[in-house]
Amino acid sequence: MMPFTRVAIIGLGLIGSSLARGIRASMPTVRVTGHDMDPAVRDAARRLDLCDDMTDHAGAAVSDADLVLLCVPVGAIGAVAAEIAPDVPADAVVSDVGSSKAGVLAAMQAALPGRAIVPAHPVAGTENSGPEAGFATLFKGRWCILTPPEGADPLAVERVAAFWRRLGADVELMDAAHHDLVLAVTSHLPHLIAYTIVGTASDLEDVTRSEVIKFSAGGFRDFTRIAASDPTMWRDVFLANREAVLEMLQRFTEDLTQLQRAIRWGDGDMLFDHFTKTRAVRRSIIEQGQDDAAPDFGRHHA
Amino acid sequence: MMPFTRVAIIGLGLIGSSLARGIRASMPTVRVTGHDMDPAVRDAARRLDLCDDMTDHAGAAVSDADLVLLCVPVGAIGAVAAEIAPDVPADAVVSDVGSSKAGVLAAMQAALPGRAIVPAHPVAGTENSGPEAGFATLFKGRWCILTPPEGADPLAVERVAAFWRRLGADVELMDAAHHDLVLAVTSHLPHLIAYTIVGTASDLEDVTRSEVIKFSAGGFRDFTRIAASDPTMWRDVFLANREAVLEMLQRFTEDLTQLQRAIRWGDGDMLFDHFTKTRAVRRSIIEQGQDDAAPDFGRHHA
Repeated sequence: MMPFTRVAIIGLGLIGSSLARGIRASMPTVRVTGHDMDPAVRDAARRLDLCDDMTDHAGAAVSDADLVLLCVPVGAIGAVAAEIAPDVPADAVVSDVGSSKAGVLAAMQAALPGRAIVPAHPVAGTENSGPEAGFATLFKGRWCILTPPEGADPLAVERVAAFWRRLGADVELMDAAHHDLVLAVTSHLPHLIAYTIVGTASDLEDVTRSEVIKFSAGGFRDFTRIAASDPTMWRDVFLANREAVLEMLQRFTEDLTQLQRAIRWGDGDMLFDHFTKTRAVRRSIIEQGQDDAAPDFGRHHA
Repeated sequence: MMPFTRVAIIGLGLIGSSLARGIRASMPTVRVTGHDMDPAVRDAARRLDLCDDMTDHAGAAVSDADLVLLCVPVGAIGAVAAEIAPDVPADAVVSDVGSSKAGVLAAMQAALPGRAIVPAHPVAGTENSGPEAGFATLFKGRWCILTPPEGADPLAVERVAAFWRRLGADVELMDAAHHDLVLAVTSHLPHLIAYTIVGTASDLEDVTRSEVIKFSAGGFRDFTRIAASDPTMWRDVFLANREAVLEMLQRFTEDLTQLQRAIRWGDGDMLFDHFTKTRAVRRSIIEQGQDDAAPDFGRHHA
């Protein structure tokens, strides 16, 4: 039995459009209704035939749904939840896909009092954005973290978990605050660092931007991928998860200072020991199927 | 006509073994003699049939060569150059593949006075190490930077350039000091940052290492690839290119502090503007063929 039969997707960017495609592929009897606040995205979604129905108003998309998925930047979730509140059926479950969870949960609870709310975060994506960028297998083999509030209906939680498993994801339950700490280190800090170094490299006097681009295969190009992610989404993540990001950044800065000192004083043993330890982390990630075992991410070599 | 006919490769790790394979593939009439100071690597090289001849002593490998390639960590180049000096034929060209160049050039000049020295740095690699990790196409479409000293024989430089072009590389000439500044930002700083963040993430109290690995697809896993690079090679690079690395690190830290302040004070406009600019750099890298155009580095998605 399908966990849900009528799904509304609000926001049809990379994640929303991948959900629409994934539902069609793995739950073909489920009816999907879509909406995006941007008319150009709605046009693209119609052209790509992403959903069974597209509506011009958010409320109309949700009025018959048993699952409502808010796939908008985290800073917009409160406003969108308030907009659809009068039209959300009493027995519908409301969820989202935001990268930070404590603030999102509070915003949804404020806008939708008494409703079944089960926030979700699929830890998956690419550097591309928009309805064209999505694909049905985006969530396969990836983790989706659910952060239901205390006292959430266990059946609603189990139905949302079953929905994500059908899309190929593994599901983990977590407290929203702990989620925000974990993702601050596995996602938000890496993005901040990547955005920083790409900015630093583009803005030097002694090394031209053309040289940076030409010789980027020395390592720099790896960072440019996540620094090409959606600016609105990431602005919102950093504003929403400020405390945890600043805490992790503080740790990072301390560790960087220690390595900087080792370089300045020529402490080769300290550098060697540090560089040896970090190898093991990569091995574990590959063993657990969270990255490609092929060298260089499986990049094509001529 | 082949630029060289008898090539000696000292050091048969990722780069040395890729050179041996690349020469066999693209210059099959060239005779390759190999040596590695590690007997286990020599055994592996013999088993893999990487070279036409393998010698147990470095001097024996170079005594008949017209091109000598030192493919050892940059900290070892001076000692290896001194070891082979008595056996290097007077008309041989000596080159290397080190990631920093000013120190390497000085070390080779001191050990091999009066010889034709044309240092080289192929900006190519993977996170894997050792003779098994090499492959013939590693240098295809990548840049190889030559940093000949002032007064170098133009014919020797042109022969080394022709050699790299036959392996599929594009060749650029550069002053050694400028090379070290450019690579500090496109390669050394990215590695230092990646080594740091992987260390930071493995060493937290509130987030377990198992959580870091599980949810690494949020961005962190990208950093673990280059943080899995060879520890000896990278220790030597940071010690050899200390000044340029510390200079670039200072720029990076300033920029990171600025973004940190924007997060702390909730300056969304500043974050959005920064995140928008960095997108363009990725586009240029792809346009110039220095990275895969496929999303997510072309990683396999289920």
